[in-house]
Amino acid sequence: MSEKKYDVIVIGAGLLGIATAYYVKKNNPDKTVLILDKEASAGAGNTAQSAGMYRDTFCSEVNLILSSTSIDFFRYVQNELKIDLTLKDITYLWLMDREQFEDNKKAIEVMLDNKIRIEILEKEDIEKKFPELITNFDNNEDAQLLNIKNIDYALLGYDCGELDADKITRDFYETEFKKLGGETLYSTRINRFILDPKGEKLGIPGEPVGWQEKKINSVETDKGEYIHAETFIAATGAWANELLLPIGVDSRVMPLKKSLYRVQHTRLTELLENESFNEEKTIPFTIFPVHGVYIRPVKYNNSIWIGGGSVVGKPYVITDPESIDYSDNPLDDNETDPRRYEYDLYLILSEYLPILKDLPLTSCWAGYYAVNTADKNPVIFKPDGIDGLIVVTAASGSGIMKADAIGRIAEALYNGKKHADLYGGVEFKVSRLGLKERDVDKEYFVI
Amino acid sequence: MSEKKYDVIVIGAGLLGIATAYYVKKNNPDKTVLILDKEASAGAGNTAQSAGMYRDTFCSEVNLILSSTSIDFFRYVQNELKIDLTLKDITYLWLMDREQFEDNKKAIEVMLDNKIRIEILEKEDIEKKFPELITNFDNNEDAQLLNIKNIDYALLGYDCGELDADKITRDFYETEFKKLGGETLYSTRINRFILDPKGEKLGIPGEPVGWQEKKINSVETDKGEYIHAETFIAATGAWANELLLPIGVDSRVMPLKKSLYRVQHTRLTELLENESFNEEKTIPFTIFPVHGVYIRPVKYNNSIWIGGGSVVGKPYVITDPESIDYSDNPLDDNETDPRRYEYDLYLILSEYLPILKDLPLTSCWAGYYAVNTADKNPVIFKPDGIDGLIVVTAASGSGIMKADAIGRIAEALYNGKKHADLYGGVEFKVSRLGLKERDVDKEYFVI
Repeated sequence: MSEKKYDVIVIGAGLLGIATAYYVKKNNPDKTVLILDKEASAGAGNTAQSAGMYRDTFCSEVNLILSSTSIDFFRYVQNELKIDLTLKDITYLWLMDREQFEDNKKAIEVMLDNKIRIEILEKEDIEKKFPELITNFDNNEDAQLLNIKNIDYALLGYDCGELDADKITRDFYETEFKKLGGETLYSTRINRFILDPKGEKLGIPGEPVGWQEKKINSVETDKGEYIHAETFIAATGAWANELLLPIGVDSRVMPLKKSLYRVQHTRLTELLENESFNEEKTIPFTIFPVHGVYIRPVKYNNSIWIGGGSVVGKPYVITDPESIDYSDNPLDDNETDPRRYEYDLYLILSEYLPILKDLPLTSCWAGYYAVNTADKNPVIFKPDGIDGLIVVTAASGSGIMKADAIGRIAEALYNGKKHADLYGGVEFKVSRLGLKERDVDKEYFVI
Repeated sequence: MSEKKYDVIVIGAGLLGIATAYYVKKNNPDKTVLILDKEASAGAGNTAQSAGMYRDTFCSEVNLILSSTSIDFFRYVQNELKIDLTLKDITYLWLMDREQFEDNKKAIEVMLDNKIRIEILEKEDIEKKFPELITNFDNNEDAQLLNIKNIDYALLGYDCGELDADKITRDFYETEFKKLGGETLYSTRINRFILDPKGEKLGIPGEPVGWQEKKINSVETDKGEYIHAETFIAATGAWANELLLPIGVDSRVMPLKKSLYRVQHTRLTELLENESFNEEKTIPFTIFPVHGVYIRPVKYNNSIWIGGGSVVGKPYVITDPESIDYSDNPLDDNETDPRRYEYDLYLILSEYLPILKDLPLTSCWAGYYAVNTADKNPVIFKPDGIDGLIVVTAASGSGIMKADAIGRIAEALYNGKKHADLYGGVEFKVSRLGLKERDVDKEYFVI
């Protein structure tokens, strides 16, 4: 049993955890800070499975602040600190039918009011700029069976694009955290939090009992060791429930599997070479009008990544081999089953983009979103009645693009500040992302 | 494989499920309605583990409406329909120290404004009416170690009391449901919901895939059979997640074990005989000022039930033998472990009530609350994108006293009504307890 005690241990070295660890260490240089992860390196869990996209096309104030300050910080890291994050504004293109466009008119107004750089394209513009797209399915019975919608409008977001989640995680946050003296311990899984009485132990069976104040003093690792700290910050994303429910902490997060598929083929050069949208001379990250199916261009190796698709009916359950499997639906068991591409995403995409017809799937992989089903925003809070614990989770699929803000807000909570200073001097009230005084405005731009 | 198809199947014959089934059948007499339960009879799960108490001492409008209309209906059942529910207004007595009283002043004002029949007792009144109580611990070091608070004030609620949860479940709702032609199927556990495409099956692997509309058409039982219905109403309380998470429905409910302890002893006659509070000539249901520890008098057999106590750090996990156990804390594993009484509740109670000193525990048992940790109110909703499913759960410990209203609201949702008619002609907007337009005001009377 180790006798070493840290001031702070961050559990989970995904992007949210490492950003938090960096700001805690930066603002508390005399404190000992350790970041722990079950994987062999930082960012190797769901961060590595991310599509690595960012955007500022939000309507809600909270979404806009968290994402725009984080993206601005990443631009600063790349442009001023000269750390290459392969951040590129390749633009985002949301394709919509007439009805979706009408539903989004209010959202578009709000974005324009907020000076977000967007442009609305009409059908003719879209067809001119993106000639491989089929836009009308009125006489296509197959497409109607698939609930495929026409493309009548598009929203083009200019300050949106891609970055390498691994590079911001490791080349910036982890590197800087270590330079400041932060410690790392990888390949170490936490089995459980140890709940103790806040003061001295009295030797009562089952301590702490109800009338004792409570504190987390240590965690038990998969090696049977106990590691001690004054404060633990749980940034375990989709795995939050496994550690937190046994100590009665409901972080309101649900794990949701998301699969990514890749198709690589020389034929795709025709699609990927496009001079109409961005400096990279490729197509935008494109979202189709049918339940959020999207493609990400990867021009240098003639491939596209394909993701999204309806999540209705998908289990809120972690089904990886190390965990329990509640479901026996053949596709839910292993959502990276290539048949999900074949019978779901491919059927839709190949109607919109006939160039994809009959191209074989090259590879596929999966990760988990940590979803707050109530408002799709992160939760950053200290649980009631349990000292020594802070929870940071539920980025709900937009964790990469909000990570810097989340790290700063978690640090502010740790240091007892009411407001966090986000990049660019933006102030953010810490309690807005907590559970008790939660103040998250509704996002209207959802397709 | 059964070919019979019901119009409605209610899963879970606890009080909420049976009340729902009754109102659905009553208002749709031509529809076939089946209620299913894993137990051998109605109300045999957590309903049977309830303390069976009711109160109208709430501040929030939602709590007040749900509880007062339900209790009024139960009084009508007992007084007019002459079905003995052993409903008795034995009163509730909340004991408070000075600080708690100050914190509750606003709540008390709201209750008085709402004409809830309460009375505030000062220390001298309390000592006179309840002579067995110790009220001052200023010179008691043991009590201070236990964080025990003085008793300076009490709130006495007159229209509060006890009823037999089994009688309202079986002698009223189940009996009437069957008289109307409702069917029951007990000792049958549901393994899972079967998610189908809404229209015809196309023979696609993993159907329904993302672009297909979805519907629940059947459930699989533990006997490997499939039972079909047009609509399923899941009223599975604390077991909601087991059935709903695998189909991607987050009902926001957490299971929380609650234990009850019973002490029976002739010596308790002295405590249980009391002429100051109610027609039963016994002490009120009494809540102590330390993290919600309570006692319920059971005068006829010289016993008290003891429950409550801090839930901080208690797992949100079902630990019964049929389920997974995430925790290895010796008391959490089996919260009905009598040591929890000995080292927790007993230590507190025996300071307030020395008459309990050294009396042995007679028996103990446990059930689960279905807790909505966000606002402690029930959720009644149709999940987005999945037809044929309604969820009714999360009564959060006040299900008995809100059951009639909940059943009527669930029926209104089933029938597509915007408003439910609660007992006494009270209208309630159905969407207030849904997830999307949830409108539940905060409860300020919490000790």
